[in-house]
Formats: sequence, C-alpha cells, structure tokens
Amino acid sequence: MFSERATRLTSSLIREILAATQQPGVISFAGGLPATDLLPKLDWSSVPFDTEQYGMSEGEPQLREAIAERARNLGIRCTASQVLVLSGSQQALDLVAKLFVDPGTPVAMEAPTYLAALQSFRFFGADIQGLPTTADGLDCAALRRVAADKKPAFAYLIPSFQNPSGLCYSRAARGEAARTLDELDIPLIEDEPYRELAYDDVDRTPLCALVQKTSWVYMGTFSKTLAPGLRVGYVITSPDLFPWFVKLKQAADLHSNRPSQWLISQWVCTPEFDAHIAELQAAYRAKRDTMQAVLERHFGDLADWKKPAGGLFFWLKLKQAIDTRDLLKQAMAEEKIAFMPGEPFFATEGEVTGYMRLNFSLASPEQMEDGLGRLAALIRKRQ
Amino acid sequence: MFSERATRLTSSLIREILAATQQPGVISFAGGLPATDLLPKLDWSSVPFDTEQYGMSEGEPQLREAIAERARNLGIRCTASQVLVLSGSQQALDLVAKLFVDPGTPVAMEAPTYLAALQSFRFFGADIQGLPTTADGLDCAALRRVAADKKPAFAYLIPSFQNPSGLCYSRAARGEAARTLDELDIPLIEDEPYRELAYDDVDRTPLCALVQKTSWVYMGTFSKTLAPGLRVGYVITSPDLFPWFVKLKQAADLHSNRPSQWLISQWVCTPEFDAHIAELQAAYRAKRDTMQAVLERHFGDLADWKKPAGGLFFWLKLKQAIDTRDLLKQAMAEEKIAFMPGEPFFATEGEVTGYMRLNFSLASPEQMEDGLGRLAALIRKRQ
Repeated sequence: MFSERATRLTSSLIREILAATQQPGVISFAGGLPATDLLPKLDWSSVPFDTEQYGMSEGEPQLREAIAERARNLGIRCTASQVLVLSGSQQALDLVAKLFVDPGTPVAMEAPTYLAALQSFRFFGADIQGLPTTADGLDCAALRRVAADKKPAFAYLIPSFQNPSGLCYSRAARGEAARTLDELDIPLIEDEPYRELAYDDVDRTPLCALVQKTSWVYMGTFSKTLAPGLRVGYVITSPDLFPWFVKLKQAADLHSNRPSQWLISQWVCTPEFDAHIAELQAAYRAKRDTMQAVLERHFGDLADWKKPAGGLFFWLKLKQAIDTRDLLKQAMAEEKIAFMPGEPFFATEGEVTGYMRLNFSLASPEQMEDGLGRLAALIRKRQ
Repeated sequence: MFSERATRLTSSLIREILAATQQPGVISFAGGLPATDLLPKLDWSSVPFDTEQYGMSEGEPQLREAIAERARNLGIRCTASQVLVLSGSQQALDLVAKLFVDPGTPVAMEAPTYLAALQSFRFFGADIQGLPTTADGLDCAALRRVAADKKPAFAYLIPSFQNPSGLCYSRAARGEAARTLDELDIPLIEDEPYRELAYDDVDRTPLCALVQKTSWVYMGTFSKTLAPGLRVGYVITSPDLFPWFVKLKQAADLHSNRPSQWLISQWVCTPEFDAHIAELQAAYRAKRDTMQAVLERHFGDLADWKKPAGGLFFWLKLKQAIDTRDLLKQAMAEEKIAFMPGEPFFATEGEVTGYMRLNFSLASPEQMEDGLGRLAALIRKRQ
C-alpha cells in the first residue's frame, strides 16, 4: 500500500523524548530548545497588510538581502539571488535529500552527526558513510578513503559547535576540509544552527567561505537566535544549485510564511539583533559554566568530555560502555531525568557507544545539581 | 550528481506565468490568487508570546479543534486527533507523494486535474492514470477499468469546483464515487481548496464523509478564505493514516508557523468567519457573472463552457483544437494577455486539447471586456 520509502520512516526520537519530558517533575537535559525567558519580545503590531497575499518562492526580498549581507560578513561570496528562505532549516534537509538521494546513494557525515539529518537522508535511502573526527576537525584521510571506495553525493558537515559532539573545527582543519572537498569534487552541505551561540574565542569561518570549486549549500536558521515557533530558516547555495532548490521549495510548500519573514527582516542587520545575540551568549555561557562545574563534581570519575566552546550541549563519553538507551529508560522510570542517548547519533545501528548528550540551556542550576547528581548515582550503581 | 528523481523536477508553470504577469500593462486571467481587496484585515497585535517557542508537530490544539468541528459539520466523522496542520496545502501533496509513490506507482486522478498535484506525484515517479469525468462527476466505470488493469495507490479527486474544469459532482455522483472507492479498496485523497467559494446552491458533501471502509485524506486550506501569505493548510485523515502523516510532517519541517496558526484559530468557528465567507461569495459571484456575460459576447461562437458554480475559473473548450500553449505565447507577445493553457492539466503530455483556463477573481470588469475581446479577436484571426 505504501511506498518503499515509507518503510524507512522513523518517528523523531528527539520529539518523543521531548513529549515525555512534558510530564510534571521531569528534569530534562534532552532537548535543544532555547530558554523561553531568553526569547525576544517580538512586536507584531505593524505587520504589513500585503504579507497576506501569496509571495515569492525565494522569500521576501528585504530578508534575502539581509541574510546575504550577514553571510558576506562571514566571508561567503554571495548575493541575495543565492538566498532561499525556508520554513525552518529542517526543510533544507528534506530538499537536500530530494535533490541528491536515491536508494543506495552514498552520503558522508561526521560520526556522530545530527540525528534529524541522519533520519532525513536515510528516509530517502542514503547509504551513510560515517566520517571520524579528530580533536580539531574532520579526519580528512578517512574522507579520502570513503571517497575512493564509494564517492558520496555530498558531505554534510557541522563545523561549528557540532551537534551532538560540540566539536568546533580549528582554522587549519577548516582549510584542510575545504581543500579536500574541492579536490575530491564532493558537494558540501554545511549546517550552522548554533554558530551565533559562541562562548569562547574560536574560529568560526564557514567552510562555504573556503571552498573554491565544489558546489555548496549553507544552512542557517533563526530558531536559535530569534524564535523557533516562526519556523524560518534558509539556505544560501552556489549559483549552480540555486534553481534546483527554488523548484524543490515550490513543490514542497510554495513559499514560506510572509508575516514572520517580514518580522525577522526587521531584526537582522540591526544593532538590536547583535545586542540580543550578545545577551544570549552571556546567558548561555553562564549556564555552560555552571554545568561544567556540576559535571566535574559528579561525573569526573565516570566520563570524559570537553567543555564546548558553543552550542547547547555537553557530549559525555562514559568510561564504562553502558547502553545509554537503557540508561535513559531507567533514569526516566526511577528518577524522572531525561537526556539524549548517544547511540542514535551514529549511523551504525545497534552499536553501544556509552555516549550521552546533555543540554544545558533549559535546566536551572539547582536542577543541574540535583538531576546530574542523581544521574551519576544511577550510573555508579550499575558498575 | 543528482538523484534520479531530480530529472523529473519541473518548475511551476503557474508561478512562471504569474511572474510574467507582473510586467506593467498585462491583463492576467492566469492565476488563482484571491483578490487582494477581499483579504480581511488581520489583527496581529495580540499574538501570544509563547508562540515563539517550538510547538507540536500536529499543530496548535485550539486550531485543530476548530478545524475538526467545521469538518464534522460537513459530515466528516473525525476528532481533533485526526487533524494535522500543514504549511499550506501544497505540503499535503508532498507528504502524500512521499507516503505512497515509488517510481512506477499507479495513481488515479481526474483528467484534467490540478497541475501542482500532477507535478508533485510525477516528481516521485507516479504513473498517472487519468480518469475521465461526466457532466455530473467521475466516470466510475473508467475507474473500475483502471483499477482492474493497474490498481492505483490512491485516487486524488477534487469533487467541489474542480481545478481546472470547475466541475462540481452531483450528490448521486458523490455517492457513486465513494461506493466505488470503498468497493475497490482505493485510498481517497480529496482536495477541497475552493469549497467555501460557492455561488450557486449545489451539493458539496465531501467524499470523505461518504466513504465507509477505505482510508482517506481530506485536504483543506485557509489560502482561499483568509490569507495565502500565511501558508496554513491542513489534512484530516482516517485514523490508520494519521501516525504516518505526523512523522512525514516532522521530517518535512517539524511543525507549522505558530503565530499564524494562533491568528487563524481566532477566526475559524466564529460568526465573523462565516460573514467573511459570505462576503467573498457575493463578491466572486458578481465577478463570475460579469465574466460569463463578457464570454457570451466574445466567445459564444468560439468555445463551449459551463458556468462554474464555484471556484475561481472558467474552463473553455475552443471549437478549433488550437494548441493553447502557442496561443498564450502569442497573446503575451502581441496583446499582453495571460491565461493558463489547458494542456499541462492533462497527464498525457504533448497532446493538443484546445482548452484554456480563465481566472475571474483578479481582473476588473473593464479588463475582462478589453482583454477577452482582444483574446477572442486573436483566436478569430487564427481560423
């Protein structure tokens, strides 16, 4: 009755866990939600009447210009004509998969990688080639081996504050990754949802600003800096890919919500937007530092991790290779504590990794102390 | 480099023609846009702050309840738990295609049918089986023959004010179509964008209210009754299909824009909404009647048509089998007049049909008289 594709349709594990964490009394380190009290108060009172009519598939001209201007400031060579506004950056994953992926198409991704990207590409039948990373960035020798064996249709990379690992490529590693992709002629899909959530002074040059020859797609969103409920994201693409993405967008949903595009265009490229981002950085930096201290207290002998320079997550490797999916079930049942198990972020299914992803944007300092203390005690009891 | 699917990606002909009609001096009968002066003045001033945060994939509970209540009033047996809010009803076409269509999957559609649906299903590789219609509805004998040959994965039907033909199934034809689908066990996808734009007293019972056994999907939108720029549509599905559509929605764009969902939920199920619909009906009925009179004056000897009981289009069959794609090029070049050629609405490519679709919601009475007079003269010259 259904398509062959439908057999690979999985529910969003993240959304299922989020639903579970809505129960009263749960302390959640699972989601990637921005803290509600840090969302700006948006002013809807002057939404123009003409945004009620059908709009352009590419997006509102004023917003496209603003997005292009910010991207040029990051070193991406582009004009507004290469900007396509989307209904959130999840939509970019769907369009990329539609454009590139047939059943069996090889696709290269960091291992671990963003779970929703893994699910989107797999849904269309991608044969995921996991790329190991180093302390500084991508293992480019591994990328060469993968490409020699089965050339991937594209490489999907998250060089800044990678989800889930928190990895931020060094400047040297960014250059090497870009050169390798150019040399191997592998299109680059670069996802940067967390780039503005930077807490330390690290290089964040987009790989899309560094590649010279290969085709590229830069994915951005306003969900982490303004308001996720508006579902506005975008891609900027190399000129060769742009007409394809416009047609894919038309077929997916004609165009994106216009009142929200208008509202966001009032923020981007204003001093207020930069001030708001600075405020977010200060608030999340404090939360990160609190969690670092709590983790040192409770997990120092249980796990290894690196303090993330940005993003919203700690990525812990437990010293014992516990199946963290089981651990989650136990933690929810016995302690009402939620986190993201590490296993689903890897393409190799079923493997026990002992990793766990802990969000630090939502819990209060007291909840961190209480929740992580009890979680550590639970792990200790299993040893 | 690209997927096999990408070779079937076509640009939206409707959107291309719309772009061409933005030139100054063009009289357009091409689009399906609501008249801008009939859009309501939406009041954004009280959008709740909490709509800025991530929301539920299924949609805002208050809006789902309101949509379900309206649907029950039409005879559809459903609760809010079967309502999935979408980013416009184009998205429903994309989700339906993903769920049902592999390369070669047979899909049954009226011939002619909605162009964007044809394109969406074809993009995923559907083998389109065109179903002829009668003066009253679907040719169910033809559906039986199609099903005996290659059973379609679903039948996509537009029983009320069909786009492009304007056909509105009679009550008897609705019953027969529903019984036939039940008997053949073919899932029903029913698209009703124009149902509220009714100008004469005709039966509009949804087929989804009449089927007893087969799975069904009811597609609705607020683009024709409130504001297309908000991109809010929905599906209501039989319970067996619902979990599939939720997962597809999550993978496509997580959830729909929340401020616009909130705003629409303030309208649906209010007396103001019904009054607004009555106002639309009166205004569009007058426009339809004007165009009917103009057509009788200029096209009486050139074409056959039936005055549509609802929707936004006249569907003319020219007495001479002119290729209306050529006619459009000539009309744009020589007279700056746009309309939709009939050929693209049929699955059988290349065939010359002599049909043309004329929108009556945008042009003024003077533009109708002037534009259709000159278009008729152009056709007369070709004879």
